[in-house]
Amino acid sequence: MKDRTDIRLALPSKGRMESEALDFLKACGLDVFKPNPRQYQARIPAVPGLTVLFQRPGDIVVGVRQGSLDFGISGTDLIEEKKGGDGDVFILHDSLGFGTCSLVMAVPEGWEGVRSVADLARKAPGMPKEGKPLRVATKYSVLTARFLREKKVEPFELIASEGTLEVAPAIGYADMISDLVSTGTTLRDNHLLPLKNGEIIRSQACLIANRAALKARPEVLEAAHTLLEYIEAYLRAQEAYIVFANMRGKSQQEIAAKIFDQTDLGGLQGPTVCEVFTRAGGKQEWFAVNIVVRKEKIVRAVQQLRAIGGSGVVVSPVTYIFEEEPARFVRMREELGK
Amino acid sequence: MKDRTDIRLALPSKGRMESEALDFLKACGLDVFKPNPRQYQARIPAVPGLTVLFQRPGDIVVGVRQGSLDFGISGTDLIEEKKGGDGDVFILHDSLGFGTCSLVMAVPEGWEGVRSVADLARKAPGMPKEGKPLRVATKYSVLTARFLREKKVEPFELIASEGTLEVAPAIGYADMISDLVSTGTTLRDNHLLPLKNGEIIRSQACLIANRAALKARPEVLEAAHTLLEYIEAYLRAQEAYIVFANMRGKSQQEIAAKIFDQTDLGGLQGPTVCEVFTRAGGKQEWFAVNIVVRKEKIVRAVQQLRAIGGSGVVVSPVTYIFEEEPARFVRMREELGK
Amino acid sequence: MKDRTDIRLALPSKGRMESEALDFLKACGLDVFKPNPRQYQARIPAVPGLTVLFQRPGDIVVGVRQGSLDFGISGTDLIEEKKGGDGDVFILHDSLGFGTCSLVMAVPEGWEGVRSVADLARKAPGMPKEGKPLRVATKYSVLTARFLREKKVEPFELIASEGTLEVAPAIGYADMISDLVSTGTTLRDNHLLPLKNGEIIRSQACLIANRAALKARPEVLEAAHTLLEYIEAYLRAQEAYIVFANMRGKSQQEIAAKIFDQTDLGGLQGPTVCEVFTRAGGKQEWFAVNIVVRKEKIVRAVQQLRAIGGSGVVVSPVTYIFEEEPARFVRMREELGK
Amino acid sequence: MKDRTDIRLALPSKGRMESEALDFLKACGLDVFKPNPRQYQARIPAVPGLTVLFQRPGDIVVGVRQGSLDFGISGTDLIEEKKGGDGDVFILHDSLGFGTCSLVMAVPEGWEGVRSVADLARKAPGMPKEGKPLRVATKYSVLTARFLREKKVEPFELIASEGTLEVAPAIGYADMISDLVSTGTTLRDNHLLPLKNGEIIRSQACLIANRAALKARPEVLEAAHTLLEYIEAYLRAQEAYIVFANMRGKSQQEIAAKIFDQTDLGGLQGPTVCEVFTRAGGKQEWFAVNIVVRKEKIVRAVQQLRAIGGSGVVVSPVTYIFEEEPARFVRMREELGK
Amino acid sequence: MKDRTDIRLALPSKGRMESEALDFLKACGLDVFKPNPRQYQARIPAVPGLTVLFQRPGDIVVGVRQGSLDFGISGTDLIEEKKGGDGDVFILHDSLGFGTCSLVMAVPEGWEGVRSVADLARKAPGMPKEGKPLRVATKYSVLTARFLREKKVEPFELIASEGTLEVAPAIGYADMISDLVSTGTTLRDNHLLPLKNGEIIRSQACLIANRAALKARPEVLEAAHTLLEYIEAYLRAQEAYIVFANMRGKSQQEIAAKIFDQTDLGGLQGPTVCEVFTRAGGKQEWFAVNIVVRKEKIVRAVQQLRAIGGSGVVVSPVTYIFEEEPARFVRMREELGK
Amino acid sequence: MKDRTDIRLALPSKGRMESEALDFLKACGLDVFKPNPRQYQARIPAVPGLTVLFQRPGDIVVGVRQGSLDFGISGTDLIEEKKGGDGDVFILHDSLGFGTCSLVMAVPEGWEGVRSVADLARKAPGMPKEGKPLRVATKYSVLTARFLREKKVEPFELIASEGTLEVAPAIGYADMISDLVSTGTTLRDNHLLPLKNGEIIRSQACLIANRAALKARPEVLEAAHTLLEYIEAYLRAQEAYIVFANMRGKSQQEIAAKIFDQTDLGGLQGPTVCEVFTRAGGKQEWFAVNIVVRKEKIVRAVQQLRAIGGSGVVVSPVTYIFEEEPARFVRMREELGK
Repeated sequence: MKDRTDIRLALPSKGRMESEALDFLKACGLDVFKPNPRQYQARIPAVPGLTVLFQRPGDIVVGVRQGSLDFGISGTDLIEEKKGGDGDVFILHDSLGFGTCSLVMAVPEGWEGVRSVADLARKAPGMPKEGKPLRVATKYSVLTARFLREKKVEPFELIASEGTLEVAPAIGYADMISDLVSTGTTLRDNHLLPLKNGEIIRSQACLIANRAALKARPEVLEAAHTLLEYIEAYLRAQEAYIVFANMRGKSQQEIAAKIFDQTDLGGLQGPTVCEVFTRAGGKQEWFAVNIVVRKEKIVRAVQQLRAIGGSGVVVSPVTYIFEEEPARFVRMREELGK
Repeated sequence: MKDRTDIRLALPSKGRMESEALDFLKACGLDVFKPNPRQYQARIPAVPGLTVLFQRPGDIVVGVRQGSLDFGISGTDLIEEKKGGDGDVFILHDSLGFGTCSLVMAVPEGWEGVRSVADLARKAPGMPKEGKPLRVATKYSVLTARFLREKKVEPFELIASEGTLEVAPAIGYADMISDLVSTGTTLRDNHLLPLKNGEIIRSQACLIANRAALKARPEVLEAAHTLLEYIEAYLRAQEAYIVFANMRGKSQQEIAAKIFDQTDLGGLQGPTVCEVFTRAGGKQEWFAVNIVVRKEKIVRAVQQLRAIGGSGVVVSPVTYIFEEEPARFVRMREELGK
Repeated sequence: MKDRTDIRLALPSKGRMESEALDFLKACGLDVFKPNPRQYQARIPAVPGLTVLFQRPGDIVVGVRQGSLDFGISGTDLIEEKKGGDGDVFILHDSLGFGTCSLVMAVPEGWEGVRSVADLARKAPGMPKEGKPLRVATKYSVLTARFLREKKVEPFELIASEGTLEVAPAIGYADMISDLVSTGTTLRDNHLLPLKNGEIIRSQACLIANRAALKARPEVLEAAHTLLEYIEAYLRAQEAYIVFANMRGKSQQEIAAKIFDQTDLGGLQGPTVCEVFTRAGGKQEWFAVNIVVRKEKIVRAVQQLRAIGGSGVVVSPVTYIFEEEPARFVRMREELGK
Repeated sequence: MKDRTDIRLALPSKGRMESEALDFLKACGLDVFKPNPRQYQARIPAVPGLTVLFQRPGDIVVGVRQGSLDFGISGTDLIEEKKGGDGDVFILHDSLGFGTCSLVMAVPEGWEGVRSVADLARKAPGMPKEGKPLRVATKYSVLTARFLREKKVEPFELIASEGTLEVAPAIGYADMISDLVSTGTTLRDNHLLPLKNGEIIRSQACLIANRAALKARPEVLEAAHTLLEYIEAYLRAQEAYIVFANMRGKSQQEIAAKIFDQTDLGGLQGPTVCEVFTRAGGKQEWFAVNIVVRKEKIVRAVQQLRAIGGSGVVVSPVTYIFEEEPARFVRMREELGK
Repeated sequence: MKDRTDIRLALPSKGRMESEALDFLKACGLDVFKPNPRQYQARIPAVPGLTVLFQRPGDIVVGVRQGSLDFGISGTDLIEEKKGGDGDVFILHDSLGFGTCSLVMAVPEGWEGVRSVADLARKAPGMPKEGKPLRVATKYSVLTARFLREKKVEPFELIASEGTLEVAPAIGYADMISDLVSTGTTLRDNHLLPLKNGEIIRSQACLIANRAALKARPEVLEAAHTLLEYIEAYLRAQEAYIVFANMRGKSQQEIAAKIFDQTDLGGLQGPTVCEVFTRAGGKQEWFAVNIVVRKEKIVRAVQQLRAIGGSGVVVSPVTYIFEEEPARFVRMREELGK
Repeated sequence: MKDRTDIRLALPSKGRMESEALDFLKACGLDVFKPNPRQYQARIPAVPGLTVLFQRPGDIVVGVRQGSLDFGISGTDLIEEKKGGDGDVFILHDSLGFGTCSLVMAVPEGWEGVRSVADLARKAPGMPKEGKPLRVATKYSVLTARFLREKKVEPFELIASEGTLEVAPAIGYADMISDLVSTGTTLRDNHLLPLKNGEIIRSQACLIANRAALKARPEVLEAAHTLLEYIEAYLRAQEAYIVFANMRGKSQQEIAAKIFDQTDLGGLQGPTVCEVFTRAGGKQEWFAVNIVVRKEKIVRAVQQLRAIGGSGVVVSPVTYIFEEEPARFVRMREELGK
């Protein structure tokens, strides 16, 4: 294979992760167009020159690591399991806000006296029957082994499995498991107990890149910049509304001052205040105020506006909030020394 | 069961009503999170402390009435059927805008001379065969009996049924029915005729609360306040756009005056008018106007703006319009004497 | 049939075209309400008096042409195939942006030396076996015949087919085809090659009207006006965001001047610039700027804003952008001499 | 309504019960033809003159009881709940083999010392708080009240509910429930415990008839006869195979005797034994045996056949096994005195 | 295209007709294997050398007529519409038992005095307004024109349409229609009335062949033979069961005689009667009888068997009943003179 | 975990393999009952004492090998990949007839001169770029490595992948692949060429058992016996019909002799021939014949029967054909020395 000149971003193929990744990118303004449902390539018009591929989340980490991919979206769990120690996998964004789950240690409910990892560490040396160590079924052998050693749960043997880990203890395939959970219902249905302090890693979707490509190819660096601009501005905007209100007052300064007195008001730099014209005419007593407010505080903010004479509060959605250069891009340049 | 300290809102379980209620709340900013699809509880982050339950619409009315629920969403039909006469069910909002239908009286098309409730009242005394009174199949015996008595359609006998009411007359299960209709197609398919003046009640989704809880528990009152803030502001915003336009004119006052002359313009308090800067520079002739317009009048409003020199009209969506305290909340406090 | 007094718009029934048309109209603010799923009529509240019908795209063109319909949405392909030469079908809008496809000529991959229409024209005279001319299977006989004659591919015979055109050559039903393609995958699967320069027509959804109705009935003309107002304003808004930013500067004029220096900034008429009030108070150094920017340039626009001192950039969605009278409506009036 | 001359069978409308009833009847050879999916009538060609209606299972019992229906298929639970004490509902077949479930008493897992109905009876008198008796939510008030009185669980109050019974105790709507269960999973998910000896009734689909119609109308009696012929012959055949085997032996008698010695062989009247002709010709040593064997014993029967010289065992399916007059029809005539 | 050496059978592609044809062939033992869902070819292992293609039903008739197909399955409606007058389309089997529908004439319910074709013929000459003849929308112009001329409904004009014929009169696209109906519900929904004596053709799936191929290619004739063997034997077996019964009697002759006395018994050639061996042993009194009975008479046949001493009646399914050479194959050879 | 006393059979969980396995077992008479869809256990009433579990096909092989499972159904591919060299996995049945696929070597279409494994072996030594050996992406490293070594394709490096192997060469993740194919379409879509002689293994579903359990636990041996009885008898019956025909002839011997002369007739041991009684009575000339015929020869067999005087041929389905002890069970006992 000759040296590539294209720029590649791999997205998870199949399942909830694929649809969530596509929905997320679309919401960011990074719509993915797949000209033909039977081909494996797509493109994102907002990032010209970027080729999108679809792969399994685990293969994405390996591909970014070995350099056959420039960018990828995958979960923290698989990234930490497969990124290796050479630093080839650079994490551009570690909290895209979807694909959340946890990797946890779980034991049969019936195990007497084992409720926490500490209990397990105490009992592990004596547990094996007939010389066989504690058998842990998992799909995450790197993370699980590291965790067990850190917590001094020894000796142990890891048993790989393709699926249905949660039945492994019941059928004697293993003694306990280290598995992904989201709601815990599956564990409970199979009479397994997640151990206290037994969360190995909390995972969500991340954007990763090949470090060498970022350093060597300016067009890859530029694509990272563009992706982070859209993603950061979108995620910030997710939390906010833009609020237009009318307020009665003597002057623009007085209005601004009243607003500063309220804890949940005050825009990014301070409110915009303009005159409003009423049918009554005559001397101006009304001003239009325009501020950005956090979504979760919208009702409290409105109540504060009312308290200081505001009314006619109109709230509109926000698509993006851009600040200075994307924080993560700045950090990346520092780390790469560029 | 000990006294509850939680705050409960019950939503309809199953069917079109469930999905419409969830969509409505999400649109209001009151997203419902159900951590586990197999459990019956959920929460609404925008109203901390509120527990969401899923129940049948009829059980919701009963639960609110007996106090095992604080709030509920159900239809006018079931609320009026089951709320009883003790005033325990307080209607916080009576027109959430979804789940609309009508409860109507319908007779076989073949009944000679029976086209209206008046006809029915005239014929009812002589209709029974062999001493049996007019048999009416229904699931709403309270509302139907009250309606028949008011309209002097007597004597009658109500026959309860679980479903497929519309075939009851054809198979001799009853003589006529009192049933919910939305489009009337099912009645026509079964050769039934809805009677003139035979609409017993027109129904849509409502938000109800337990009166005693509103009075006795301040945290329930506070939750009612928050729910109504979101719901009223959302419903008001549904009907409006925010319009940004440029207008040529001599002064801000002149622009405002022109706008007041147009019937479909004029914001909540009067337009916001600012200067605009053109490439030409020099003396300023353009101003930016910012008003709120009703959706249904948007094209007429734009045409009026053009007529008075407006151009470059940009229209953006509105998420909420908050006015003074929610009207329904104010009314509620008055009724409760708080 | 007596003379109609209603105003009719026909939409494609069934398939992707129906759902895309409904989605498009909804996005324009022209929501279609179908009171009863089993009836063939609907209405659009935003255009009072308009009756919506659902028909096959080809029948829509014929209906508009013969005057049983006033308006219709159909594809360029069928409009050109069926509109006839009498000018009865008036194209109000020729690029609604959905339903795109191409009508192309395709031959079996195995035909030696036939890669373009020119090749075909050269070989056609000698191709027929035993006196039979080149047989072309198609559903578009008018367009295909016209194209073949223009390109001097003669002699030929057209063979009508209801479906599965792409297998026609393989089973000897015809020698080649003229068929709609979107991705080309179906052609390739059947070992057919689209000819170079063989695209007969590129198609997308259009809004058409009966010319006589536009001229004779003022209420039809008014409906055309309203439809085009919504459609043009929506399509224009699809491409834009409204941007609110804060900028540090000496005066409104200075800010405006800086913005004019940037290629991707500058609103429809020039930016709106207002004062912003900071907590620091004292002499004012910050101004709020409000401009409309094309979606595809949003990141570049933000970077230019930053370069001239902008920060706190808030981007909101735009529902409509109205300019002067809809361009297509003006053109229509000119053509109709009204 | 005038006297009916048609013969009516009502089937459950909607849900699993409808499809299971249709599948069952089809398997019996009583295929149901519904000419039009939007009408409520159908017919069964194998029983000429029979009209099939679709209704809710509970309404079917009421309709058979009041005589607007002649036959119906419904569950034991609803039949016992709604058949009343007048004997109008005659149970023609009480075990059609589908629609199985149980009505059981269940209490919150957390109730100390309540594991059986006896525990409940002991604790009930003292359980009410503030004078309110034990509240039991149920949809089966007749059966539940009778059961509670028989078991001396008193005092109690029944609370009707439309659905989601299993959450009633958790939300304080009732103290415990009497509900249908199939697998018990839903109870466990809601932390409810089915009481020991708390099964009120075990239910499955039954065929019922109006007693007066059976007595007064010979055509209804004849339809009952035909329905039971098909149903009984089908259910009996469900359990059997017809077995054709070759056996080496001296004579037909010897073969028959050998078969009689085996516990799992022997047809309804004794095996059919014929000569078989082998290629070898000469003196006949092989005989063909033909017996009916129960499905569940097929492998054991084959092993016994092998043990006595059988081979080449061919097993075919059986559609019906008719014996003398259908047992249930005979019993019905006796009960009705016909 | 060179001369074909393969043997082709075309099946309807898409919709109910495709799945019914595949189900029918599978039930006949002519399972269709499609190695790859994306290709248009399949095969039927039971008829080696046969290639299966999938096409639209109308194209199948044309393909069989022009000889690009040897066999096809299509509906009577399309065959009669498109087979032409040259006899190239030979109907091998005219009643495969699926795909049934009718082509009927229907008029708006509101037409005064038009209830039958005779009414229409009487009124047609005077009906046209302003010199335009009666306009009939249809997809079957050959059959409709022939029918109208035969019934002397003149003058008329046919209007072709792609779909939604049933709305054509309401929107003025035509005055009446000639359309396919199955249940009549769609007509009624659109206020159309099927005319008395207005059924143009009753249609069901047929097996057709190219006459020239049957005559010239022995392998095509052989395939026709095999297809008809399976189809006729399957259709005959659909109506029958094989019955095994035990009867008490003196001799085989006596048993046979008793059976002949019963109208619904008696196999194809007479019953098979064998001895049965009972546990009692001693003199033989039981015989096994084996006959074929029509499905619709099974209960009556069993009752007759019981009446003459039968019991233990076991009924098994029948897959095929072969008689002498397939009747339709014999007839075909005669017609073709082979 | 203590020693198990249950008997376990694991079936594939999820996907086509699960449904095919359940369908296959049901067709064999080994219906699987899963009392609760949320639990992982089920049972097979026909094999009392057997517990059914659901696991991934690969885990099934490992579980049978390590002894946590007694029986399993999995594919040849995974069995050969994971069974190891210790003989713990005993293959009871190697051709259950479903789940068929092939593991093949495939290279990019564009590789010059590489069309067969021999070509690859010739080119492999020189192919690596910059010292990296030929990289083969696969999920079957054991089978692939063994195959490459046998075919002398060296040096090579295997690259593990979770999925989407077919895009690996295009994106540089590997040079070529070793992957499962069923129709080859996916390979072609990705421009990959399966190599001549490159089929590593042809796979289908097999029944496997733990060798030690078969030897040590008689109840496991007995379950193996029962499973093989059902499976072998079912698979044999799949290919056959039972045929009942009437034949004219002088004697039973003459009939039998005629039948023996026909190649496609003759049952397992010879036909059963009985007298038939005709209405004519008098001297008997008709006999009933009963033979088993292979499905694929049914038409030829009928034609041969007709040729020797047969008529009235009735064909019934066969559920099982049992012969002597199941061949595979006998072989197993020999191998195990039992």
